[in-house]
Amino acid sequence: MNELEHVIPANWDVPTHLKESMMYSLMAGGKRLRPVLVLAATEAFGVDRKAALPVAAAVEMVHTYSLIHDDLPAMDNDDYRRGRLTNHKVYGEAMAILAGDALLTHAFYSIIQSGRKYGIPADRLLDIVEDLSEYAGARGMVGGQVADMEGEQGMTSMSQLEYIHLHKTGDLMIFSLVAGGRIAGANEEQLQALRIFGRDLGLAFQIQDDILDLIGDEQKLGKKTQSDVAQQKVTYPYFIGMEESVAEVKRLTQSAKDALIQGEIPDPARLFEIADYLMKRDH
Amino acid sequence: MNELEHVIPANWDVPTHLKESMMYSLMAGGKRLRPVLVLAATEAFGVDRKAALPVAAAVEMVHTYSLIHDDLPAMDNDDYRRGRLTNHKVYGEAMAILAGDALLTHAFYSIIQSGRKYGIPADRLLDIVEDLSEYAGARGMVGGQVADMEGEQGMTSMSQLEYIHLHKTGDLMIFSLVAGGRIAGANEEQLQALRIFGRDLGLAFQIQDDILDLIGDEQKLGKKTQSDVAQQKVTYPYFIGMEESVAEVKRLTQSAKDALIQGEIPDPARLFEIADYLMKRDH
Repeated sequence: MNELEHVIPANWDVPTHLKESMMYSLMAGGKRLRPVLVLAATEAFGVDRKAALPVAAAVEMVHTYSLIHDDLPAMDNDDYRRGRLTNHKVYGEAMAILAGDALLTHAFYSIIQSGRKYGIPADRLLDIVEDLSEYAGARGMVGGQVADMEGEQGMTSMSQLEYIHLHKTGDLMIFSLVAGGRIAGANEEQLQALRIFGRDLGLAFQIQDDILDLIGDEQKLGKKTQSDVAQQKVTYPYFIGMEESVAEVKRLTQSAKDALIQGEIPDPARLFEIADYLMKRDH
Repeated sequence: MNELEHVIPANWDVPTHLKESMMYSLMAGGKRLRPVLVLAATEAFGVDRKAALPVAAAVEMVHTYSLIHDDLPAMDNDDYRRGRLTNHKVYGEAMAILAGDALLTHAFYSIIQSGRKYGIPADRLLDIVEDLSEYAGARGMVGGQVADMEGEQGMTSMSQLEYIHLHKTGDLMIFSLVAGGRIAGANEEQLQALRIFGRDLGLAFQIQDDILDLIGDEQKLGKKTQSDVAQQKVTYPYFIGMEESVAEVKRLTQSAKDALIQGEIPDPARLFEIADYLMKRDH
């Protein structure tokens, strides 16, 4: 995503190290799944993806900030991510906290730029800002991270695990899809279809993560497996076994796709592709 | 501000400890200077302050998040604020980071609620969201915090100190005033007057802080004095001496007030009062 290189306006007077720290993590690569979902959702309505680029960049900023904070010593204490040193290992903890804060804040700026650059109507932009503040905040992603942090084997129920998966991972995927739909001018029924698609896809994605942590290839994953076992995390395989977990990923992927058909999304082919790719991924 | 007690919707499913941690710091008291500025700016146009309450709450959330993150061990490592244990001393570092993240995110939600509750037009709300993302982010408050963190005696110039003061403290005050003006439907000339008022007031406020750190009463301030000296921070008295610093606070307060008159703000009496109060404060 070339868009990401230019998210901070050139005429902004930003301390050099802060900008470097923000860009270090933003440009670190990864699947770019959330921006891809924004763009695919816009295209599913036959609308040019260009108008969705600032919002795609925004969701990647939010995802990146959450990873920077998640990697901190006080949280997961990870030294590496995607084969590179984590932000705080390069720039120090204080800068990592502030770079995360700045990325989250800047995501909202990027959304507003959709309007300035591509003429998205103000009321749609407000709906996107409101969605992000819900899906990324206390009742969304941050709530999921807190529940994840507090969860442990023997204490956490299956329904709490679903809460963790839905919010920690799913909510930002739902946001991405709904935002793409809003940019394209989707109606409420279509937005609801995108929400269901995102929820089922997000849950399937996270169960697949649980599965890969148990039986995946460390080289392909770029991280150590068995970390959930080591940290005594609850997972789907822990509760319902491997076979049932694999079946659940399949079932959720199908129900995600069904939602798009029922919601009469005009051209869901690319979204179907993404769903199938995620189900079959080995990293 | 009773408004603050109800900022998180009752029907939101938020992990208990997260909500507690957010509210612990949000309800910790303090001067509430930024919300007061929002409300006073709206009233300066003869508009009912009620419409400005959600934005006033939003700016206090942003201020509170910045204090929570600032107090963390990796940053200023403070155990107490306003006579109470800091957030991470009560809820742990991980929760403090996440509570800060959630408060920042929720500030944007609160702004949108101005529209939903009080019918503020969508384009004004978008301007407020854009302002917040600039004034609170990399080129604003966070940038100021980074510059402050990196500053030290012998290395930092007077102009860099001005950058720190303007951004770390001033930008959120400018945001507050401009947001209050926007809610009231101020024109561009009036908004510019509020920006100048905020910039001069913010700088005066921070120089007064520098002064009080040197000669203030620890009991009234609720914190130890001489901390800038101990941490080898650059301050206005460090550069230009005490007498000149006191004169500068007076000069800036007057030029702040002049801006409101030149910008033809209809009823600036309350804003004048606030400026005079800040200049004379001893805590």
